[in-house]
Amino acid sequence: MIETVEKEIVTLVEEIGYSEITRLFGTLAGGKRLRAKLVLAIAGADATAPRLGAIIELIHAASLLHDDVIDDATLRRGAPSVNATEDSKTAIMLGDALYSKAYSTLVAYDEAVAKSVADAVTALSVGELMDVKMSEHFNSDADAYMDMLYLKTAALIEASAKAAALMVGKDAEAYALYGKNLGISFQIIDDILDIVSDEATLGKPALHDYVEGKCTLPYIYLHEALDDAEKKRLVSYHKKQLSAEDTAWIKAKMKVHHSIERSYALAQELSDKAIAAVGDDMRLVGIIESMMKRSF
Amino acid sequence: MIETVEKEIVTLVEEIGYSEITRLFGTLAGGKRLRAKLVLAIAGADATAPRLGAIIELIHAASLLHDDVIDDATLRRGAPSVNATEDSKTAIMLGDALYSKAYSTLVAYDEAVAKSVADAVTALSVGELMDVKMSEHFNSDADAYMDMLYLKTAALIEASAKAAALMVGKDAEAYALYGKNLGISFQIIDDILDIVSDEATLGKPALHDYVEGKCTLPYIYLHEALDDAEKKRLVSYHKKQLSAEDTAWIKAKMKVHHSIERSYALAQELSDKAIAAVGDDMRLVGIIESMMKRSF
Repeated sequence: MIETVEKEIVTLVEEIGYSEITRLFGTLAGGKRLRAKLVLAIAGADATAPRLGAIIELIHAASLLHDDVIDDATLRRGAPSVNATEDSKTAIMLGDALYSKAYSTLVAYDEAVAKSVADAVTALSVGELMDVKMSEHFNSDADAYMDMLYLKTAALIEASAKAAALMVGKDAEAYALYGKNLGISFQIIDDILDIVSDEATLGKPALHDYVEGKCTLPYIYLHEALDDAEKKRLVSYHKKQLSAEDTAWIKAKMKVHHSIERSYALAQELSDKAIAAVGDDMRLVGIIESMMKRSF
Repeated sequence: MIETVEKEIVTLVEEIGYSEITRLFGTLAGGKRLRAKLVLAIAGADATAPRLGAIIELIHAASLLHDDVIDDATLRRGAPSVNATEDSKTAIMLGDALYSKAYSTLVAYDEAVAKSVADAVTALSVGELMDVKMSEHFNSDADAYMDMLYLKTAALIEASAKAAALMVGKDAEAYALYGKNLGISFQIIDDILDIVSDEATLGKPALHDYVEGKCTLPYIYLHEALDDAEKKRLVSYHKKQLSAEDTAWIKAKMKVHHSIERSYALAQELSDKAIAAVGDDMRLVGIIESMMKRSF
């Protein structure tokens, strides 16, 4: 069924009616389509579910385009980003065109469905802005980090599940809870992979988050566990290019203090909560299990 | 009644729920509120018209934030732009937050109303992308320029008039035609003012458009009228910092060939068409007349 979503995506992009946009969109890697898969798994019985999945994937693609401009990222899913191959202007405007096309298409849906998705984009933008502000200095506050992460990543996944449930009259709150916890777990796993994976697998340099200024959960947990002199050393590496020695020190300290394991345990706990919310739906259990086991 | 719109704007921005966004939005100059005034003039009888006006002004503000990033503009309405006082990241994300808040609020409106506004944002983004592409080289094609200008500027003004008419059961096509022609005239006048006004009045350097790479209508008309050697000279100034002598040459040639007058005549012709579409509505005639006479 995901092929139907892919076709809907192409149709929506072509409907924008500007060949340059179709060409640029064609250069983007599609990604895992987690959000669309979620919509299909929950609302597959509704004939307009693939289109809703396509709308949400356009929103996700738009957010990544802007994200890459904001992070000055030159790679996305192992391929050069649009801001690298073209320029930032093009990436911003392509993102705006995809966002607005998504919204234009969304207005045909029930108001509650449309509103849950549109509200999630506001959350996403606020989360992104918080992320930018938080990256200015070392952030050791796990709660503030989790709040930002919910807005930036989980809100759209939560809205995907909620909107899909609303479409077919399932329990919207239970599915929203599933989506929220799936989304947060997903991002924690992403944060872990940035530390434990190699560059070839990730499609970006390892420890890239920290070099960019992002204090993800393993760094916050590590900071909590270190003594004062070590805390100072960790903070001194924040937002800096890391030598092989610096990287080795961070990784060794994380090993000693089980920072990765602690982070993974939280992701697991949230995954369990997600499963408990929609316990009997084996497709949703499958989505979360393969997400937890992924290596990229 | 425009005060009601201002209050709605503040409410919507505060509803986003992030103090940093409220603070940043507070630094933006409000502008002429042309789009909101149009909504009020057409749909003032509807109690939700001020809110629709506020939604469209948020969209307009978001588009200007992204526009300034794209144009590397450091001034907006005589004040420093957000990308200058903060940074491009903040301007992009603030724009995204305003866009999405506008859409979230829009879903409560009738589908046709919501769709006309959302479609206009797609047009606006496509127009902006066309503008970026067209600015790469000297463009002498007036039709291509007018197509871009319609999408970039007039589509949202057209949608404001159309959506307002739909809300109160007026003739949507007639009001759309009014809005479209008002929007195109508005932009032509803007293009003229960039050439004839002084820096203090404009809040940006004169002939700024051409230095930025934008071949507006007066330049296209001038190019048509020049001999081959002069054409070459004009094109050689495209996208360059202009000396006082270069500026004087362009302005003198425009005077000889009546490039400004020809542009103004087209704006007048379109204004007349706009008035003819909604002839008996004196508030709309007033809006267009004061727009044509403005000096900034």
